[in-house]
Amino acid sequence: MQAFIVSIGEELLIGQTVNTNAAWTAAQLNQVGIEVREVRVIADKKTEILRCIREAEGMAGLVLITGGLGPTRDDVTRDALCEYFDSRLVVNKEVLDDITVYMERRGRKVSDVNRDQARVPEKASIIRNPYGTAPGFWFKKGDRSFIAMPGVPYEMKEMVLNHIMPALEAAPRKKHIVHKTVLTHGVGESVLMELIAGWEDGLPDAVKLAYLPSMGIVKLRLTATGKDKELLVKLIGRELKELQKIIPEYIWGYDDDSLEGVTGHLLAKKEKSLATAESCTGGFIAHKITSIPGSSAYFKGSIVAYANQAKEDLLGVSHTLTETQGAVSREVAEEMARGARQVLNADYAIGVTGIAGPGGGNKNKPAGTTWIAIAGEHDVASRKFAFGDNRERNIIRAANAALAMLKDFLERT
Amino acid sequence: MQAFIVSIGEELLIGQTVNTNAAWTAAQLNQVGIEVREVRVIADKKTEILRCIREAEGMAGLVLITGGLGPTRDDVTRDALCEYFDSRLVVNKEVLDDITVYMERRGRKVSDVNRDQARVPEKASIIRNPYGTAPGFWFKKGDRSFIAMPGVPYEMKEMVLNHIMPALEAAPRKKHIVHKTVLTHGVGESVLMELIAGWEDGLPDAVKLAYLPSMGIVKLRLTATGKDKELLVKLIGRELKELQKIIPEYIWGYDDDSLEGVTGHLLAKKEKSLATAESCTGGFIAHKITSIPGSSAYFKGSIVAYANQAKEDLLGVSHTLTETQGAVSREVAEEMARGARQVLNADYAIGVTGIAGPGGGNKNKPAGTTWIAIAGEHDVASRKFAFGDNRERNIIRAANAALAMLKDFLERT
Repeated sequence: MQAFIVSIGEELLIGQTVNTNAAWTAAQLNQVGIEVREVRVIADKKTEILRCIREAEGMAGLVLITGGLGPTRDDVTRDALCEYFDSRLVVNKEVLDDITVYMERRGRKVSDVNRDQARVPEKASIIRNPYGTAPGFWFKKGDRSFIAMPGVPYEMKEMVLNHIMPALEAAPRKKHIVHKTVLTHGVGESVLMELIAGWEDGLPDAVKLAYLPSMGIVKLRLTATGKDKELLVKLIGRELKELQKIIPEYIWGYDDDSLEGVTGHLLAKKEKSLATAESCTGGFIAHKITSIPGSSAYFKGSIVAYANQAKEDLLGVSHTLTETQGAVSREVAEEMARGARQVLNADYAIGVTGIAGPGGGNKNKPAGTTWIAIAGEHDVASRKFAFGDNRERNIIRAANAALAMLKDFLERT
Repeated sequence: MQAFIVSIGEELLIGQTVNTNAAWTAAQLNQVGIEVREVRVIADKKTEILRCIREAEGMAGLVLITGGLGPTRDDVTRDALCEYFDSRLVVNKEVLDDITVYMERRGRKVSDVNRDQARVPEKASIIRNPYGTAPGFWFKKGDRSFIAMPGVPYEMKEMVLNHIMPALEAAPRKKHIVHKTVLTHGVGESVLMELIAGWEDGLPDAVKLAYLPSMGIVKLRLTATGKDKELLVKLIGRELKELQKIIPEYIWGYDDDSLEGVTGHLLAKKEKSLATAESCTGGFIAHKITSIPGSSAYFKGSIVAYANQAKEDLLGVSHTLTETQGAVSREVAEEMARGARQVLNADYAIGVTGIAGPGGGNKNKPAGTTWIAIAGEHDVASRKFAFGDNRERNIIRAANAALAMLKDFLERT
């Protein structure tokens, strides 16, 4: 069975709201092996809604519609559904009771507008709404389902999780989908493609591969589709093992892993602590690390030494070194890492110095030139990167590169 | 003219990626008076792409397509376009040069895979891509435009901002939309609504108001629609003046202003410098400040003192103070700000200490409790906040609150 998601709302079409509802719903459906064939965003107009439902009916067995069920004049989804399914509105006692309880709990009276929301299409099953006044509607036509829900994310999610998913899970399933995403760093999409071309060519028909590159990280998503879930898991597992043999040095995690999460986990396991000394990344690496709950167990802190004076005063970088080698150099990055390790009393430290851009570069050191060093008790590793001249991306790429280098360092020492 | 946005990508249909591209593009189009009629998300399949372009052609004069232009096998948009517009692929010298320069800058060789990306549909105009290897394609059919761009957000955005928007803006228009967004901090949506209710009631019919609250900031968007652009600008200007009289203390900027940009501008104008001492925000404030190009002119750096020991060693916070008042207290926040000002040799400093959560709180100081202090030469200001227990949101809200406090402080002293 394929699904079709319809998101109704002006706020989506003018770009005021990002359609997180559709992505969330798609991820839920995917987990039970239902593929989403298409997502559409349309206006709160009856003609548009009718056209869209008609086309969806020809394309998918499950049509999920959100939005346009509120009490105001621009909410026309209920009317459109009544017309499409040739149904009239009848007062539903249960819904009216729900609305009454909902309003009373908030110390408000049930208005005519609220009471109107208890009028529901006679031909639909009702999905009650514990978080709002608009119920959901479930229409059946042959073996197809059409489900309308409110657009408010938490109202919609409650209906999907507690009503729709259990019903879908209970239905016998013909097809399963299994995903595994492999996270790599340190290799570009095209080089990666060449490296694993032989393996990719040998993938069984049931397994598809997708490349998702972003900010120095390339995600490889394996998707297996078929009738036998256990077989799919086995297939993916077998291919994954092969892939791990080909590019072990580039893989740092799987699925929803983050570099800050993976390195944090390694540090916690080793019972070691971390500090950072940041120049061009301006605190972004510390921010990433501390975005992980519980990071205070292993993260000591960071010296964001934006001014050269701060590098000398707080990290003990020698003035002569900065003068002779330049602030963006291997030596200064290493001194920064060593300095942060010492003053913050940490087992490991990251040091980053570079030209974030867009200005500040020169012919020898263009914007994007970045040196990253990792210091441990006995050892320092350092590397030069050339990221380009976009400030925002340089900062993110430098942070990703630093955390990936830290991971390698932690695994080696 | 209406627009139709097509987003191509499996990652969108399985809910791995949220479709931010479509929302961003819709917002851009809206600004020049172009309404988006529909957004569709479809799979990287030739048949799906062909069906979608065909239907879009019947519905809108401008069709914007993103995704599926990469070098890998799952990228089929270019092929689909060639088939739809009956065009063949030819090597484009300019694109090949761009790709060569792009690869050389990164110290990589131009592979066959890269070279293939220089083969472009003969019937399309080319949109060059400074940030990647896939060019964009602009097809014309009668008075309709079909534009294909890469799905990578920053590559797509560059093409929209620097190529497509200028072309659309140059075209004669029948309808104009004028927006003005007022940025406030320190007041909730419902209080704000009551404060400006009288003004809102008096707005002319052509002007609409929308509330966009996020992370302690409430944006008020005024939208005027009509035929006469100058009149719309005047209308908005008049209403804006009235609004400024009612809530001057909450307004900190307009349109695309950021708190880090506005405070940075104030510092640069005063020729004063800034430092931060951060605990719960973990470097995020320093990151925001340094995201502004040229911030090295006024930002000295930050001490991210995550461990209490670091607060004492690096910022001179007294051990007794931390013991008696607790690390999350007015006194520690003020000492942190004073300490950062001193050790980083800055004119002003921000000090933030709090419980980011979700863990770490107690009955007296629940997660989200945050103290923020601003230190100047003669004066220290401090304030307590209660943000709730969501770690990610606490960090953002604390950073916004700290920068808003800094702005007030800079304007007062």
